Amino acid sequence: MGDVSPSEVLPARNIELLRGIRCFVVENVRSARRFLRRAVPDFPIDECSFTELSEHTPSSDVAAMLAPALAGTDMGVVSEAGCPAVADPGSELVAAAHRAGVEVVPLVGPSSILLSLMASGFNGQNFEFHGYLPIEGEERRRTLQRLERDVRATGRTHIFIETPYRNARLLEELTRVLAPDTLVCVASDITGPGERICTLPAGEWKKRGGAPGKVPAIYLIGR
Amino acid sequence: MGDVSPSEVLPARNIELLRGIRCFVVENVRSARRFLRRAVPDFPIDECSFTELSEHTPSSDVAAMLAPALAGTDMGVVSEAGCPAVADPGSELVAAAHRAGVEVVPLVGPSSILLSLMASGFNGQNFEFHGYLPIEGEERRRTLQRLERDVRATGRTHIFIETPYRNARLLEELTRVLAPDTLVCVASDITGPGERICTLPAGEWKKRGGAPGKVPAIYLIGR
Repeated sequence: MGDVSPSEVLPARNIELLRGIRCFVVENVRSARRFLRRAVPDFPIDECSFTELSEHTPSSDVAAMLAPALAGTDMGVVSEAGCPAVADPGSELVAAAHRAGVEVVPLVGPSSILLSLMASGFNGQNFEFHGYLPIEGEERRRTLQRLERDVRATGRTHIFIETPYRNARLLEELTRVLAPDTLVCVASDITGPGERICTLPAGEWKKRGGAPGKVPAIYLIGR
Repeated sequence: MGDVSPSEVLPARNIELLRGIRCFVVENVRSARRFLRRAVPDFPIDECSFTELSEHTPSSDVAAMLAPALAGTDMGVVSEAGCPAVADPGSELVAAAHRAGVEVVPLVGPSSILLSLMASGFNGQNFEFHGYLPIEGEERRRTLQRLERDVRATGRTHIFIETPYRNARLLEELTRVLAPDTLVCVASDITGPGERICTLPAGEWKKRGGAPGKVPAIYLIGR
């Protein structure tokens, strides 16, 4: 949930539902507890159980996490920066829930993928999210060129992310690899105090610079 | 915004921001007025201006809609069922704003694309939204088969929508064209009173049936 106040970015309904949940599967226990304290100041955190589900959790451990739901207890899934199961852990647990016939209720929340797409000015009728680009230089360059060709051919929007400490390098690569008139949207610190969303041709990014600092950022190529 | 109460699905921050806006670009004036009355009961709707931006609006009319923002007045964009500019009108206006150097601030809200992906149990690290499938039978069948092959080869999730009165036909097509073990998620009336999200193999959908009625629905193929 980043550092923004939960009530700023979550509907009141989520907070109400939270009040009834004692059994959580979370990406990180410490920050989930902090999130709960901020969302509901009098939340009985000591009565809650927390099970960690992160990218390091073995798949074989996931199904057992459903036990409370199978016994009829509501469970909540909380992830760190975005929406559970979308570029964040959770989808394996959701899949196990469907297999077991457990109802799954998604709650409205901030997703940098969706928010950046809304604010990019790019095609929102057809888009693809890629997660991280390949790391290896040549494969990375070829991927970017393929995405650029696809934007020109189909108008599809391509969305990808980068780790904060590599933001400057990625923007430099984009301006080097892409044609100067290819539009690039860079959206950083979305819903945070330093939110900045800017769509410019690659050639203009090259002139102006302006890579995000060491903050979460998301990148879009589109038209 | 459908028929759900705005405060159920929108953060309080959006409602606060709404209070300061008098100049709206909306997909449909009548339902935007109704939305504003429900979101902020004492909203001074008679002091507001509404400009319609729908799929029928000529592109050449869009840039002029920015005039109030260029004069320093905050504007709001409201679309009907989802988030503006994502499978809903608005992206051309946002693009014009970037070209004119007008700041764009996306607000958190319900998107059936994102919510259904979260609740599907499918891969949320790599996904594509296609809008509507081709209508013509043979092209539609080939598209579905291509998406199915891609799910098997890459694990990418494919998301598409259908108009409510064609839901039954689409589910029938999916169960006919796809392999019985291909997983299909059908999510209907998301955030509405009849919300139903179910992920099953195509063969199971064939046996059980259960196509959505004439409600908004979104379909996902994934693994």
